[in-house]
Amino acid sequence: MTAPLPIIDGLQYSAWSEAIFRQMRDGGLAAVHVTICYHEDFRETVENVIAWNRRFERHPDLITPGRTADDVRRARDEGRTAIVFGFQNCSPIEDDIGLVEVCHRLGARFMQLSYNNQSLLATGCYEAEDPGITRMGCQVIKEMNRVGLVVDMSHSAERSTLEAIEISERPIAITHANPAFWHPARRNKSDAVISALAESGGMLGFSLYPHHLKGKSGCTLEDFCAMVARTAERWGVCMLGFGSDLCQDQPDSVVEWMRNGTWTRDLDFGEGSADAAGFPAMPAWFRDNRDFPGLAAGLRGVGFSEEEVGRIAGGNWLDFYERSFGPQGGSADGAADGSVR
Amino acid sequence: MTAPLPIIDGLQYSAWSEAIFRQMRDGGLAAVHVTICYHEDFRETVENVIAWNRRFERHPDLITPGRTADDVRRARDEGRTAIVFGFQNCSPIEDDIGLVEVCHRLGARFMQLSYNNQSLLATGCYEAEDPGITRMGCQVIKEMNRVGLVVDMSHSAERSTLEAIEISERPIAITHANPAFWHPARRNKSDAVISALAESGGMLGFSLYPHHLKGKSGCTLEDFCAMVARTAERWGVCMLGFGSDLCQDQPDSVVEWMRNGTWTRDLDFGEGSADAAGFPAMPAWFRDNRDFPGLAAGLRGVGFSEEEVGRIAGGNWLDFYERSFGPQGGSADGAADGSVR
Repeated sequence: MTAPLPIIDGLQYSAWSEAIFRQMRDGGLAAVHVTICYHEDFRETVENVIAWNRRFERHPDLITPGRTADDVRRARDEGRTAIVFGFQNCSPIEDDIGLVEVCHRLGARFMQLSYNNQSLLATGCYEAEDPGITRMGCQVIKEMNRVGLVVDMSHSAERSTLEAIEISERPIAITHANPAFWHPARRNKSDAVISALAESGGMLGFSLYPHHLKGKSGCTLEDFCAMVARTAERWGVCMLGFGSDLCQDQPDSVVEWMRNGTWTRDLDFGEGSADAAGFPAMPAWFRDNRDFPGLAAGLRGVGFSEEEVGRIAGGNWLDFYERSFGPQGGSADGAADGSVR
Repeated sequence: MTAPLPIIDGLQYSAWSEAIFRQMRDGGLAAVHVTICYHEDFRETVENVIAWNRRFERHPDLITPGRTADDVRRARDEGRTAIVFGFQNCSPIEDDIGLVEVCHRLGARFMQLSYNNQSLLATGCYEAEDPGITRMGCQVIKEMNRVGLVVDMSHSAERSTLEAIEISERPIAITHANPAFWHPARRNKSDAVISALAESGGMLGFSLYPHHLKGKSGCTLEDFCAMVARTAERWGVCMLGFGSDLCQDQPDSVVEWMRNGTWTRDLDFGEGSADAAGFPAMPAWFRDNRDFPGLAAGLRGVGFSEEEVGRIAGGNWLDFYERSFGPQGGSADGAADGSVR
């Protein structure tokens, strides 16, 4: 009998604890892509890597570093959760293209080219104008392709996203967002973006963050799963996964920091507002990692086959990891030691 | 008898030495705005401040810190040259708006919002697209206005420059560039930009860098001064000064670093080209600071009055310093101690 397809979550940023790692196990998560940077520079990001190294030491029965697809399969077989590092911004590479390779070596496998605002590489979805990928951005995408650091455009603006898909020689990801046809939030993605992503072999991780859901915190599991079905009908099942954007146990000061970093003296409310500035309440059917089996059941409920559920719940992400985390032109998983030369 | 108007150069980046400081004295320079950052982050910029502190200690007879217009007048009266710090890029403030006030306190009086490329604040003149001032850029301009750090758009793109003039509540500067009507180089400025600059009380520093000159290294003093006269006829004398862009005694590795920093793995030649990658030869009539009196003579030669020559050679910059270096709404030179609260 073949091993079951792993469950993989395409993005989380929780206040990490043993309790959360146990919930990952209870939910059957073989891998979670965790954010280790929103605004941190290189040195601060390294400090976050160190914090994860301590967690790996402290909870070897629950979590393990996830640097390759093989790491994820091994974690699944051993009953652990592989932790894949990613950046929601390009701040860790500062203005130094040489840091791309260094960050990959340190375990980073996803990097957003921009987070809400204009970056040195690309435009964020909250800017009034979107001029597309910058001169440095073109250079950095090429370098990310070379070493196997996945371009993530979740918080980027439309034109920048389309250009990143075009410029990147390897498929990119939108780790956590939903189709705008379902809920036209600023962070959700247009048909044009999803089509370009599908054609290029990219991945879309469906978000469970209430601002990305139709009906927000009141969104029903049925409505969410019907949206997944509609997306699959239009673009196929193979590009689809989850990217819950779960920010469990974080105080509201964290979402304020995500939105404001140190770039403004006025207060920015991002997807929130002055009278609803904090984290929104998660939908009742997705409180934490233990609810992934319920999500899978919801997909069955709207007619997905068992194989399709397995693909969406993690199989597609695993294939994408296999294709994406090693050096360009190298053998699959050739970067098991992080080497790119 | 009133003291003569000081000679002021609006931008230099030389390989600083006692010999150069002596040439400043021989040329009668009361102040020079020196670049202390192209790509450096905050910490690296502080190191450049420290290097200047050592130079001030070593050559107290030749140079002195220039933080206010009064510092410049005092330097002129004492036969010294006031050194005004400026950044050609916003890299010293990293992504932290709080560093604007800190940099002002450390002596910075000019900051370019972008250098050739897209920055977090604005677009550089080598990008294919120019979306204007970013969200963070709007915040930072407001903060620069508050503390008295002058917005410099010398290496920025057209729309970003026009928007910076519009958004800034205080006049801005283009410290080193020439009118494009004379020599349509990418770094030179359109009529629209010069008009907006003139209307807003801003300053234009004429560049002597060969790539900005009609005829490049072969440009004649007469042709240069005729261009100054034509600019004065169209926009008045009061916005005009010098910004020589003198990069004396620098090896060609420095111009390669200016252009490439750490943002690219391909080689960028900026205003140069593969077969002319180094610093261009300066025109014969402007080799170093000793040639400023000759420049002033050239202005007389194209019909400027003695008072006009004094304004262009330094009087206008001194007035601009007076209006610009203190806190917003404060008394002139109120920031003698760098205090902004």
